[in-house]
Amino acid sequence: MRTVYVNGDYVPEDQAKISVFDRGFLFADAVYEVTGVLEGKLVDFPAHAARLARSLSELDMPMPMPEADLLAIHRELVTRNGLEEGMIYLQITRGAADRDFVFPKGAEQGVVLFTQSVPGLADAPAARRGIRIVTLPDRRWGRRDIKTVQLLYPSMGKTAAKAQGADDAWMVEDGHVTEGTSNNAYIVKDRTIITRHLGEEILHGITRAAVLRMAEEAQLKVEERPFTVAEAQAADEAFVTSASAFVMPVVEIDGTRIGSGTPGPIATRLREIYLEESRANAI
Amino acid sequence: MRTVYVNGDYVPEDQAKISVFDRGFLFADAVYEVTGVLEGKLVDFPAHAARLARSLSELDMPMPMPEADLLAIHRELVTRNGLEEGMIYLQITRGAADRDFVFPKGAEQGVVLFTQSVPGLADAPAARRGIRIVTLPDRRWGRRDIKTVQLLYPSMGKTAAKAQGADDAWMVEDGHVTEGTSNNAYIVKDRTIITRHLGEEILHGITRAAVLRMAEEAQLKVEERPFTVAEAQAADEAFVTSASAFVMPVVEIDGTRIGSGTPGPIATRLREIYLEESRANAI
Repeated sequence: MRTVYVNGDYVPEDQAKISVFDRGFLFADAVYEVTGVLEGKLVDFPAHAARLARSLSELDMPMPMPEADLLAIHRELVTRNGLEEGMIYLQITRGAADRDFVFPKGAEQGVVLFTQSVPGLADAPAARRGIRIVTLPDRRWGRRDIKTVQLLYPSMGKTAAKAQGADDAWMVEDGHVTEGTSNNAYIVKDRTIITRHLGEEILHGITRAAVLRMAEEAQLKVEERPFTVAEAQAADEAFVTSASAFVMPVVEIDGTRIGSGTPGPIATRLREIYLEESRANAI
Repeated sequence: MRTVYVNGDYVPEDQAKISVFDRGFLFADAVYEVTGVLEGKLVDFPAHAARLARSLSELDMPMPMPEADLLAIHRELVTRNGLEEGMIYLQITRGAADRDFVFPKGAEQGVVLFTQSVPGLADAPAARRGIRIVTLPDRRWGRRDIKTVQLLYPSMGKTAAKAQGADDAWMVEDGHVTEGTSNNAYIVKDRTIITRHLGEEILHGITRAAVLRMAEEAQLKVEERPFTVAEAQAADEAFVTSASAFVMPVVEIDGTRIGSGTPGPIATRLREIYLEESRANAI
């Protein structure tokens, strides 16, 4: 049984509970981060902590503790759960208060962390065969740059994708792809990597930033701009990035095969580089 | 200390807890209802139960128990908490499961209910002086007809309204008012009541349906159509409705006084009729 961190205590997962008055439960008034773990070490932790601080700040919440203390909890959970490969989920809420739409004053913030062990995550079979994507309208709220737990629509979207025999969904707004249900979306055309520019419409992916930096180091051209589904279907390659999928090749979009229908060389190479650098720099 | 219902048990509020793996907490994968209580009786309970069933159905969730059992829990909470006036909050979640965007199979749904006592709710001073509204862009997700707990944006909106010295906010999309942060919005011009038509853009208010029915019985004309902020500011009256505010006059919108700047006769009369009928029909 996993050990989970809840508001100061390390507890067995079946005792990991929060108040029903916690605003994370009543109002989705909470933000989260998911940090990848490779060889028992945390991938890109400082970047996740920085994004967490920004999400909290956008919602007028402080960091509930210094970054070093958050890091210590992450490491303690890795140790207690013998986690080698997988991820650590962290959620910060505005805390418990009598139910009222108006933000309460003086509530103690909720802090929950748990591990998810995924042996073989770095060597996932899906990365060798590529994943299939369907598209659907993006009907989420307007501030997707804040990593809140308002995840019902992406959850519906991924469930619908699976029901159609696909692996995941990309969301489309005003004719252009925004992002995947829990990842950023990319296409490759003539050795140029194209991915949507940052803004309130998408999450500012930690893996996205790392992969674009590595792509430029590898002399690949990067264009940050919107692209259409038709453009994606006519691309040479496509892929997604996230903290738990790393770089994941996409081989089909709405039934149309991308390129040769197998993982493309650039996506494959970026995955290798990303995993190498992540293993080298994990803390 | 209140007694709260959580997943089959009646517990003191400080022991009212749900699993951190509950999808209501991790994904806002949950719906809710708030039923008004007058003189210890439930207002419009069958309509709330019907809307709950619809919200669940739209998200591929079943009702966790027959309506009669839900009613029994509501009544038990009224009794145990000596509730005379206020409301009962009910939340149904998809249940606890290891974190995955894809809907889990076989999770046991979460069921949480608690009371909120508001002595003097029917005789609220705010109803005698009217409330002041500010407007803000509507940036919520696309399915506001499903009563989910994705309430962060309305919560931010009401908090921002209070910070500006107002009481609440109306949300505006494509130039037209959608609704309030937790209520439906109305204006009155030349004895015609105007309120936005039903659709995915707004919640299908239980109080809205009752008040429109009562308005027609009182020979008032009702137009269900979008209206602008400018049209609202030039109206004779304005008001909002919800299960906890009943009919609440609006006397100011974005600093502009509505009509005489005091609660209008139609809003005031509708509030009286609504409270009378609710008291007569509460169960």
